[in-house]
Amino acid sequence: MFPKNAWYVACMPDELADKPLGRRICGEKIVFFRGADAAVQAVEDFCPHRGAPLSLGFIQDGHLVCGYHGLVMGGDGKPVSMPGQRVQGFPCNKAYPVIERYGFVWVWPGEAALADPAKLHHLEWAERADWAYGGGMYHIRSDYRLMVDNLMDLTHETYVHASSIGQKEIDEAPVKTRMEGEQVVTSRFMDNIAAPPFWRMALRGNGLADDVPVDRWQICRFTPPSHVLIEVGVAHAGHGGYDAPAEKKVSSIVVDFITPETETSHWYFWGMARNFRPDDAELTASIREGQGKIFAEDLEMLERQQQNLLEHPERALLKLNIDAGGVQSRRIIDRLLAAERAVGAEAAA
Amino acid sequence: MFPKNAWYVACMPDELADKPLGRRICGEKIVFFRGADAAVQAVEDFCPHRGAPLSLGFIQDGHLVCGYHGLVMGGDGKPVSMPGQRVQGFPCNKAYPVIERYGFVWVWPGEAALADPAKLHHLEWAERADWAYGGGMYHIRSDYRLMVDNLMDLTHETYVHASSIGQKEIDEAPVKTRMEGEQVVTSRFMDNIAAPPFWRMALRGNGLADDVPVDRWQICRFTPPSHVLIEVGVAHAGHGGYDAPAEKKVSSIVVDFITPETETSHWYFWGMARNFRPDDAELTASIREGQGKIFAEDLEMLERQQQNLLEHPERALLKLNIDAGGVQSRRIIDRLLAAERAVGAEAAA
Amino acid sequence: MFPKNAWYVACMPDELADKPLGRRICGEKIVFFRGADAAVQAVEDFCPHRGAPLSLGFIQDGHLVCGYHGLVMGGDGKPVSMPGQRVQGFPCNKAYPVIERYGFVWVWPGEAALADPAKLHHLEWAERADWAYGGGMYHIRSDYRLMVDNLMDLTHETYVHASSIGQKEIDEAPVKTRMEGEQVVTSRFMDNIAAPPFWRMALRGNGLADDVPVDRWQICRFTPPSHVLIEVGVAHAGHGGYDAPAEKKVSSIVVDFITPETETSHWYFWGMARNFRPDDAELTASIREGQGKIFAEDLEMLERQQQNLLEHPERALLKLNIDAGGVQSRRIIDRLLAAERAVGAEAAA
Repeated sequence: MFPKNAWYVACMPDELADKPLGRRICGEKIVFFRGADAAVQAVEDFCPHRGAPLSLGFIQDGHLVCGYHGLVMGGDGKPVSMPGQRVQGFPCNKAYPVIERYGFVWVWPGEAALADPAKLHHLEWAERADWAYGGGMYHIRSDYRLMVDNLMDLTHETYVHASSIGQKEIDEAPVKTRMEGEQVVTSRFMDNIAAPPFWRMALRGNGLADDVPVDRWQICRFTPPSHVLIEVGVAHAGHGGYDAPAEKKVSSIVVDFITPETETSHWYFWGMARNFRPDDAELTASIREGQGKIFAEDLEMLERQQQNLLEHPERALLKLNIDAGGVQSRRIIDRLLAAERAVGAEAAA
Repeated sequence: MFPKNAWYVACMPDELADKPLGRRICGEKIVFFRGADAAVQAVEDFCPHRGAPLSLGFIQDGHLVCGYHGLVMGGDGKPVSMPGQRVQGFPCNKAYPVIERYGFVWVWPGEAALADPAKLHHLEWAERADWAYGGGMYHIRSDYRLMVDNLMDLTHETYVHASSIGQKEIDEAPVKTRMEGEQVVTSRFMDNIAAPPFWRMALRGNGLADDVPVDRWQICRFTPPSHVLIEVGVAHAGHGGYDAPAEKKVSSIVVDFITPETETSHWYFWGMARNFRPDDAELTASIREGQGKIFAEDLEMLERQQQNLLEHPERALLKLNIDAGGVQSRRIIDRLLAAERAVGAEAAA
Repeated sequence: MFPKNAWYVACMPDELADKPLGRRICGEKIVFFRGADAAVQAVEDFCPHRGAPLSLGFIQDGHLVCGYHGLVMGGDGKPVSMPGQRVQGFPCNKAYPVIERYGFVWVWPGEAALADPAKLHHLEWAERADWAYGGGMYHIRSDYRLMVDNLMDLTHETYVHASSIGQKEIDEAPVKTRMEGEQVVTSRFMDNIAAPPFWRMALRGNGLADDVPVDRWQICRFTPPSHVLIEVGVAHAGHGGYDAPAEKKVSSIVVDFITPETETSHWYFWGMARNFRPDDAELTASIREGQGKIFAEDLEMLERQQQNLLEHPERALLKLNIDAGGVQSRRIIDRLLAAERAVGAEAAA
């Protein structure tokens, strides 16, 4: 149950450095590769000759060459040539609209005619020189919506990430959820508390005292189809919190792009964008390593939760106030799904 | 096909030392933990909040805390509290009757109202200071009844355990099977034979000559739902065998508690209780190690047998005289199953 | 979809050196073992007593003994004896006709009454002292017919085996396919080309210059049910190619016996027979190692192709001129399948 007419993160550019990449996205087996002008292209990962996966092939002169018998596939899904053969009558592969932007490769797995680059969300931080980004990817065997739930309710940090970013005060601070057009925003403010280990490191990294009380904030923002960007930070207490002057706070954006693979698995692209010391590559690496360890703690929980849900389809889950972010996000997803079904029904009529 | 209204071994106490334990028993996913008074408690391994497995959580003040968002679960299946929430209206989990006795944790996976502590079999050896016990557990991917068959026909020792406890004379000695109420007893007596390696070790361990002829016995006792206790021993030949005076024999009880996990897998709790040198911890460890190796030899046979049977459902197996122990044991299991179905049908009417 | 009334390679003799071998062939679980006169015998891998796999047992006095409770099975599928039992009334196992010849064990997995040793193809090279053979076996998770396709269209060498036997000229040379009775022959001749690495090694191994132009040939011969023998070689250019005198060429036969395991997996027996330096065991080992590496390159391609085909049953594959060898071979297989169905229908009527 995932909208297909939407832009999803397909991969990171370095995954396409020198060879094609096969990846299943929203149920579609797709091969990604860099064409003649280095533009990323995406077609079905199936050679029309004998069904071999094109992703086992190689790139030659900007074309994708099948590694079995040498059929040359174009980025538009049309076979270009094949040794000793005329390929004009060969069946074509489905081609997928692709955009490379903001340091990611985005794919539109649904109806190509509906793909609109303008629908790609603008990511301010990804284009500014005073911001830095570091991140990674995990493959998780759960419905992608369990990850949306996870990120739209950070209460779990107290329990799942107790040793790094979790703290009791998260639990105790009330959470507010509101809709902003097609976005869902869940925010939590914790004033005058001790900073947890991750933020103490960030304070020190930014030249600020790490042993004084801080005001902490978490503002989770869901945008369809399944992106969650979280503004997080701490300021020395009493200086305005989220609105404190730059020299009193340290903040960043937790970046989460969640791409369905199948109904019960997804690709999780996680990272952190920060606007302090953007040129400090060592700091980027250190944050990335720390974040990677923290986010890995969610894996087992989500995968085991998925198994439990599959086994107990009859059990209705609770929708508490802390779950409002996930519940509202799923409503938006449901609306998109209904709209796709309506278009599909119309097309079939 | 397992009776659910019965006491099964769930785990050994040390499996609950410092954290909850998730284990599937008779198809039910259960989390076991020690509550406030250190009493073991068992509830469904499913958090009513979002379906996370409670067994990934931790124990706090005698309650089980969900490791995802902190719901606190009581041993009666009722949510106790949750940060920032009122839990009165939350759905409850199924709770399972549990008894800790004889060095094991026992669970009643069926109808809680029918659970009767008096139905737990008395284990004399487990409560006496002049007996010692050592054992372990294996997970085996076969119907638990294949293990009952295995243990109620020790002919297999000649073949599966040829290098330790097997010997040709087992094959050659006739076996007698009789019913004793709800028990099945299969016995075999082998007079004036050479002791196999395991028993020679035991004779030496007990200060007896290991190079003289012995009388050997095996008395297998099935009690429902699926326990097999086997009196085994050897006496210097001509002193009365099973009835020989204590200083002429070495004997023990092979303990087998067989707990269904699914229709085609089970937990096998094996061990040995002995009434000689009970304080010799080194001897306990050495016997335990030897027995562990011997019983591991059954694993592949049972798992491959299970695969063969699943592939050939049409093939009727033979029921020879040596199989009488298993056949009679299965009849008792079938009676219990029929009784449970009758109660279920009555309840539904 | 495999003919069952045919001789397939079951195993290599050294797989039966000292214990029974369990192997599934054409869907049948079979145990192979050497009987009293060292003749190989084959019966269902299922003990009629309790369903244990007989292949976990051992050989004693030319009989197969079940490793669970000691039933002794004869090569004709009739239980011979069992300790303490009369086996006359025991059900019999299916027995499979077996021939050991040409350095292989062959089995007839279908109707035993139809098994005719005369239907085993004659392998001239396997019986002559001036030929040597070396080979191995791979288990591949694909329909056996994908391997037939693979071998009947060597165009793939250019891509899959680019670093050893592949070369661009294979692609460019036209291929001819013809029927010879129940055989399919696909041939390709490439004149006046540079020899690829494998053949340069062979030329040197045979005392010939390896840096001169050569004429190269590949003659693939499919014989039912699924054997592909390929005459391959190179001659110093201009001396007649395939018909050049022995001192100007080096040639051999690539041997491929393809035995279905299930509908989507097979056993691939591969090797090379050569008629030069037959006594050079070091050369045999070196060729075997090289060929093993080359043929391993096909594994991933075939297994991933199989997955793609299972996922896209609606996609018709192309049948190009280069595919004619595989297409014709499949027609012969289809004829055999239709004939088996006709016989089965007749028998049922």
